[in-house]
Amino acid sequence: LNRRLAEFGTTVFAEMSALAQATGAINLGQGFPDTDGPEEVREAAVRALRDGLGNQYPPGPGVPELRHAIAEHQQHRYALSYDPDTEVLVTAGATEAIAASLLALVEPGDEVVALEPYYDSYAASIALAGGTRVPVQLRPDAGTATFRLDLDELRDAVTPRTRLILLNTPHNPTGTVLTREELAAVAELAVERDLLVVTDEVYEHLVLDGAHLPLASFPGMRERTVTISSSGKTFSFTGWKVGWVTSTPALVSAVRSAKQFLTFVSAGPFQYAIAEALRLPDAYYDELRDSLRAKRTLLTDGLTAAGFGVFRPSGTYFITTDVRPLGHTDGIDFCRHLPARAGVVAIPNAVFYDDKAAGSPFVRFAFCKKDEVLSEAAERLAGLG
Amino acid sequence: LNRRLAEFGTTVFAEMSALAQATGAINLGQGFPDTDGPEEVREAAVRALRDGLGNQYPPGPGVPELRHAIAEHQQHRYALSYDPDTEVLVTAGATEAIAASLLALVEPGDEVVALEPYYDSYAASIALAGGTRVPVQLRPDAGTATFRLDLDELRDAVTPRTRLILLNTPHNPTGTVLTREELAAVAELAVERDLLVVTDEVYEHLVLDGAHLPLASFPGMRERTVTISSSGKTFSFTGWKVGWVTSTPALVSAVRSAKQFLTFVSAGPFQYAIAEALRLPDAYYDELRDSLRAKRTLLTDGLTAAGFGVFRPSGTYFITTDVRPLGHTDGIDFCRHLPARAGVVAIPNAVFYDDKAAGSPFVRFAFCKKDEVLSEAAERLAGLG
Ligand SMILES: CSCCC(=O)C(=O)O
Ligand SMILES: CSCCC(=O)C(=O)O
Repeated sequence: LNRRLAEFGTTVFAEMSALAQATGAINLGQGFPDTDGPEEVREAAVRALRDGLGNQYPPGPGVPELRHAIAEHQQHRYALSYDPDTEVLVTAGATEAIAASLLALVEPGDEVVALEPYYDSYAASIALAGGTRVPVQLRPDAGTATFRLDLDELRDAVTPRTRLILLNTPHNPTGTVLTREELAAVAELAVERDLLVVTDEVYEHLVLDGAHLPLASFPGMRERTVTISSSGKTFSFTGWKVGWVTSTPALVSAVRSAKQFLTFVSAGPFQYAIAEALRLPDAYYDELRDSLRAKRTLLTDGLTAAGFGVFRPSGTYFITTDVRPLGHTDGIDFCRHLPARAGVVAIPNAVFYDDKAAGSPFVRFAFCKKDEVLSEAAERLAGLG
Repeated sequence: LNRRLAEFGTTVFAEMSALAQATGAINLGQGFPDTDGPEEVREAAVRALRDGLGNQYPPGPGVPELRHAIAEHQQHRYALSYDPDTEVLVTAGATEAIAASLLALVEPGDEVVALEPYYDSYAASIALAGGTRVPVQLRPDAGTATFRLDLDELRDAVTPRTRLILLNTPHNPTGTVLTREELAAVAELAVERDLLVVTDEVYEHLVLDGAHLPLASFPGMRERTVTISSSGKTFSFTGWKVGWVTSTPALVSAVRSAKQFLTFVSAGPFQYAIAEALRLPDAYYDELRDSLRAKRTLLTDGLTAAGFGVFRPSGTYFITTDVRPLGHTDGIDFCRHLPARAGVVAIPNAVFYDDKAAGSPFVRFAFCKKDEVLSEAAERLAGLG
């Protein structure tokens, strides 16, 4: 293993999922639902398979049906217009989109400003590209029980070597949804300093309070933003790995240059199925959110009753907690022992920080699970105190 | 787009497939069959989807069912033993396996010795890793009508900066199958100079003369070889993107470190289907080869009759031709005009060469197409002379 990757061993998800399997604990670690998405979407995949759609190499940018559906979806939801032929690229999930964007756009020595904590592939992809990550911490705010971006810190993080800002809203792991004011400030900064922004918005349909605001919709941003999204979280088929990038023709073409050598193309039949999924009526998205709001309440109540400090997520299906009220200070240690102590798996936020001390007391729980599973987990955790 | 990728625009496959679509020409360019693989394999994918197998994130290394099937297959076919838990890694096709292997194992400045002509992702992946490619040309041999490796040239290409040899047998685009003697010499060299070898053997079941010899089966190689293969070509589902790596625990773990940040995991339901495919009886593989041998004859005869110089492939489903007997010297130019002139799409081998002059007269045709399509293509090409 080379030096660039030396600090990245196994993702925490692999370690914690293995713990869940070995102990039979309830897995509230990695972010995948325990109920598959709509039957009609699954059956659309079956039809594609049987009709021979996508069983052989699909076109590199993605099948036209899916590229058109993505463009229509952006138009319908956000009044953002993308040309399906030159401004949309299908990827093997958002993870490939992130890797390809960074490998295409970052030169060795460039700085990438990224929110901390960050989904672990961000750091690895920056490293693979030979870039340097410059974290800007989301700070816990006791008053609102949320994590917030300090716009002055963001501004100070930008230097002449900054190539791009890597944003994520709704934010994993904190559940923070950046406000209109915060996004406007990011946009102003990007325009002023002439920066690109790569924004990971895979949780766009999991905004539980308010509405999702795509960064690309802010003044001056359409032409300097690479927007990443994915079907996995929205349609509850995380195992299908269909994601995408929308941006300008020049930026999409750059990302495609890298993407074509990472996976060449993405699994064909699922592209057709997700094209149909994106045309589900608005009611589908409303019900998804309603169901997740109820689950958020269930798990928030359980964690509060168990004595955790609980941050309120406005988006994603993750809740970040503080384990200090339970008498712990090291979240990594806490998570390693949690399966044996309480039969539950969680993720220590510290793995998403460079500043391990800052992240140490925080632990993340996923609530994209059946109500009875969340209730059982809450009961088990109640015994911790 | 950054400097590292600047020389890599769009893969030739994208350009030529677009030409095929625009002109309605017969596409003998990119290597995918025009007939899907076995119905029972497709139905295994349907069952996985409906049974909820792989619809959510599968484990990072691949589902156990597939890892075990891969290990059994290696044992059954080649008497090579791999531990499914630590020595097998599932990837999003061979392309991801190549990218991950090079990103994991090559340090900036390292040299990678690779056969020329080379599948275009090799050069791009070496560049992404910051390495330098050192091509060793397969030379056309008029006597045998094949391309051959000069072992002295290979030996001379290795320097103290060489990190690894990137091999490919059966070889795309020439159809060369390295002989036992050639492979033994590569193995000796690797042992003597203490080199790793990454070997792309995706055409392992498309050896049409003789038997496939995995490099890992040569003395001293099991512990220094990263073997890459894939289901796409073997089972005629190139759109599913299920590939894999087999090697030592240390090397697999290094490749996984990179792979987990490229796509995180590979599409779940297809992993279950390919696990079943790998257990098809030997007759399946025999019939695949018999059918391809007949197609090789069909297209070889057609190309010869049309006046091409024809090299005889011992493996893959590609035939490399020489266009000089037709009065042409520039294969790229020839391929750009072929759809309009003859209604056929082919691939200019020059795009797989650093030494463009050496590759210029060669043009590749794929024969993984229905017999009637090959006959029609032959007829069209006959009009060229
Ligand atoms: C590890 S996969 C993508 C992100 C996610 O699901 C998680 O953070 O749990
Ligand atoms: C472009 S995909 C993998 C290789 C192949 O099929 C080809 O060379 O045509």
